[in-house]
This record gives sequence, C-alpha cells and structure tokens, in this order.
Amino acid sequence: MYGLITRLTAYPGRRDELALLLMDPAVRKHGCHSYIVAHDLVDADVLWVTEVWADQPTHLSWSEDLRQSGAWRPIYGLMAKMDDSIQTRPLGGIGL
Amino acid sequence: MYGLITRLTAYPGRRDELALLLMDPAVRKHGCHSYIVAHDLVDADVLWVTEVWADQPTHLSWSEDLRQSGAWRPIYGLMAKMDDSIQTRPLGGIGL
Repeated sequence: MYGLITRLTAYPGRRDELALLLMDPAVRKHGCHSYIVAHDLVDADVLWVTEVWADQPTHLSWSEDLRQSGAWRPIYGLMAKMDDSIQTRPLGGIGL
Repeated sequence: MYGLITRLTAYPGRRDELALLLMDPAVRKHGCHSYIVAHDLVDADVLWVTEVWADQPTHLSWSEDLRQSGAWRPIYGLMAKMDDSIQTRPLGGIGL
C-alpha cells in the first residue's frame, strides 16, 4: 500500500469549504482504502489529509484524472498552501 | 471525533517489531475508528501512526488502561523517540 500525510493551509475562513471539496463524494477515489480530512486543533486554517491507496501508480493515475477533469479547480481559491506530503508504506491497523 | 498523527523513531533495526506491537490485535482499541501504522518511505527507522477515536476522553482512558496493563512495556526497548502528536478533529472521508 501507499500512504500520504499532507498539511494544507486554507485561506482565512475558507477551511471548511476546502474540506468539503476534498471529501466531495462525486469525486470517486477508486483504489483508495482510506482518505481522512481533519481540522488541525491548533491552527484554524490548517487541514490534515491522511490517505492510503492500493499503490503509488493508483494514486498517480487518480491525481492525473482529477487534474484533467478540473473537478477540483476551485481548490486554488480556497487553498493558500500545500506542504510536501509525507510518503508512507501503510502496514495495517484498524480502518483499512 | 478526535485524531492523532504521530511520528515514532525506532531503534535501528527494531521498526518492524515496534509496528507489530502497535498493531497487536490482542490490545483492544474500543472506540477507535482508525489506527494505521505505516513505514516512513525516507527514514528506515521511522513509523507514522494515524489515529481516529470517537473523542478525546475515549483515547485518554484507553491510554491509561494500556499504561496500567503494561501490555506495551516492551515498547521502551524498541522506540528511541516519540514526537509530540499532531492533534486533529477528523471531519470525514473514506475508511471511517
């Protein structure tokens, strides 16, 4: 499996709109085992997205399809910054 | 819901033993919706644990019970360092 932990900073007051966009069920995430969007408890503009995908190619092709579909284009008006993702190899646990 | 993202550093060569301890099904995690243990893809000694609990009191009481049970006492021979957890409020997504 392939995992990502990413810190996103929304523009002030836009965090929940950004979260809704990320969780939009209309955007299918085939091959994704876990995709959790969470508020940071300290910084009111920060979201954490933790993801587990079948493998890295599955995630890459999803990202490319998403880019071409333009479904997340509104993100540029909501997200001030996206940190480099921490890349992981999920081993197991609860919720996979 | 209450979430945690934690970076653990194992002693050299002990990462997988540490991961197995963390994922030990004998240690019940009542009220835990997601508990994923993953290798860091860059640092061979680092694990990432991402957790989602019903709420913070549920997590605190589990931690206290675990401490008293001593079930994870071996962790001190396996884990060189535990960073401060990033605390989150999970909103939703896949795998919850």
